[in-house]
Amino acid sequence: MAQQHPDVRHPGAPYADARPLDAGAPYADARPLDAGAPYADARPLDAGVPAPVLTAYLRAQGAEFLRALAAWAGGGPAQGGEADAAPVLRGTARRIGATLHTFHGAFDPAWSTGLRRELAWFSGTLAQERLHAATLRRLQAALQEPQGDLGTARAAALLERRLTLARGRAHSAVLEALGSARFHALADAVALLGGDVPLRGGAAVEPQDLASATEQQLADAVTALPAEPETGPCPVPPGDGDAAWHQVRSLLRLHRYALEALGLPVPSRLTAAARTLDRHRDAAEAASVAADAARTPRIAPATAYALGNLHAHQRHEALAARRAFHRTWQSVPRSRNTVTVP
Amino acid sequence: MAQQHPDVRHPGAPYADARPLDAGAPYADARPLDAGAPYADARPLDAGVPAPVLTAYLRAQGAEFLRALAAWAGGGPAQGGEADAAPVLRGTARRIGATLHTFHGAFDPAWSTGLRRELAWFSGTLAQERLHAATLRRLQAALQEPQGDLGTARAAALLERRLTLARGRAHSAVLEALGSARFHALADAVALLGGDVPLRGGAAVEPQDLASATEQQLADAVTALPAEPETGPCPVPPGDGDAAWHQVRSLLRLHRYALEALGLPVPSRLTAAARTLDRHRDAAEAASVAADAARTPRIAPATAYALGNLHAHQRHEALAARRAFHRTWQSVPRSRNTVTVP
Repeated sequence: MAQQHPDVRHPGAPYADARPLDAGAPYADARPLDAGAPYADARPLDAGVPAPVLTAYLRAQGAEFLRALAAWAGGGPAQGGEADAAPVLRGTARRIGATLHTFHGAFDPAWSTGLRRELAWFSGTLAQERLHAATLRRLQAALQEPQGDLGTARAAALLERRLTLARGRAHSAVLEALGSARFHALADAVALLGGDVPLRGGAAVEPQDLASATEQQLADAVTALPAEPETGPCPVPPGDGDAAWHQVRSLLRLHRYALEALGLPVPSRLTAAARTLDRHRDAAEAASVAADAARTPRIAPATAYALGNLHAHQRHEALAARRAFHRTWQSVPRSRNTVTVP
Repeated sequence: MAQQHPDVRHPGAPYADARPLDAGAPYADARPLDAGAPYADARPLDAGVPAPVLTAYLRAQGAEFLRALAAWAGGGPAQGGEADAAPVLRGTARRIGATLHTFHGAFDPAWSTGLRRELAWFSGTLAQERLHAATLRRLQAALQEPQGDLGTARAAALLERRLTLARGRAHSAVLEALGSARFHALADAVALLGGDVPLRGGAAVEPQDLASATEQQLADAVTALPAEPETGPCPVPPGDGDAAWHQVRSLLRLHRYALEALGLPVPSRLTAAARTLDRHRDAAEAASVAADAARTPRIAPATAYALGNLHAHQRHEALAARRAFHRTWQSVPRSRNTVTVP
């Protein structure tokens, strides 16, 4: 099971041995996302009947995953390499995992649970590096204005050192993961999505019902969010109530991927709402990094002062993102927001 | 001219010797502010014709000023004393000064310029104490939440020490001013508003034209304000562009007092807009105080960090007040906002 794949960092190394699907070949039979195409075949599943829409979606995502993996392994800078491949690997791993999660009733439980766990591990490893890079960019942007303040320059240098180090460590973790037996087993499992997907035996399951359950969880989580005050006390405590927001972000992602998997259009306002939650997560993370940096031993008070400014500013950015989410969400028509097959 | 008034700090000292107006007696003939009463007598002024509306307004404000001064001098805690009298002294001094400024063409120039300067000195002295007290309250409110952060408690203690000291100094300056020959000359001049107000000789002047000039200055200053971005870089530099906002606040106050002096109603939305500018000023001042406190030698980095948070938070509060002003201002109908005698 755990074949020894060539080191993916070696340019030109073919990544063919884990692919019953030809990563470079067009995958004309695996395109369930033609917008507007009716998806009349998203019908009840039962033991004997495959779920054509879902399996086609998984197959297409699996092919994309393997294609990106080959590009990373084989691509020099001219082909984009890591920078282009990493987001595709992350996105396809998340989509496959989300599909197995939302439509869990349609698949063999042991198989889907195991594959989801491994996909979560791998996409989580990739996400760490991206998050550190994004946080560094965000904090540099916040500090780039000429401030005429020595503390600001020192704070920027301190944050850059810390985040560059963290990103470097995260990158090493990604490379280590890619070279591991665990990843090779995962790549094999993804490759097998090109063949028959193990379905659950037993009673019939409506994919729409499963997708609607996710949507209902999302709606409930949004309703449970506290209203954001226009002003308030100084937001010194880091991460006040962030967890509930991150949960809504995860549920909204599951909902969007479920619509995708069923071949339904994703309303643009859902995408816009998701972007406000990304901004919220990034600002919350940046605030947390500024607060952590302020605990560095022996920093100058001026540096700590600049980090305090930065922290509060990012918390306000998070607050602004929360308000933007509420505005966007209220504009999402509930009828468009319901999973129904056209 | 500079009579020696009794020390106003001495409880029970009567303050009668500077009052041709009886501060305790009702002043039925000096009430130009009956809302809704038509002010048909706000007519062109000329050398021979007194300006009944303006002189009645000055007389009423002067009487209020003297009444508050007597309350301060004579009042124990039961009567309210300083706490009740100071805002009235400040408000009436500002109104008299604003009237002399806006309708300068109606009054004897040497007299009105001199009295305005002395009123500005005295109301400015009173305002300092109020501002320190308000800033302390604002910063304590911002820091009152349980933060679980030693830096926050230290920052609160540092700010309290600094602002209590500053308020104490400002209070001493007020008492010193009240006991000065300069103030006694001012009180005499205010008392003389009960008699004939020195008018300017020469050409006829329309009070409405003078009030409209102030209103136009206000409109121009508002138009020149920069738009506030929803988000932006970390607002570390203190007081970015505050001066233009403080200028609008002063002009709006002049405009409101001009409407009052002419006996015209002050639209509630102008009052609301003024409150947003007060909030802006208070938040800007609090941010500036937090920034100054962070320059205290030998403070702990945790204290500086908490002060940085506080600074950025108050700058965001100032930004929120700017946005609130723009929203309120846009809702002020221009037709209601024009000085016209009904």
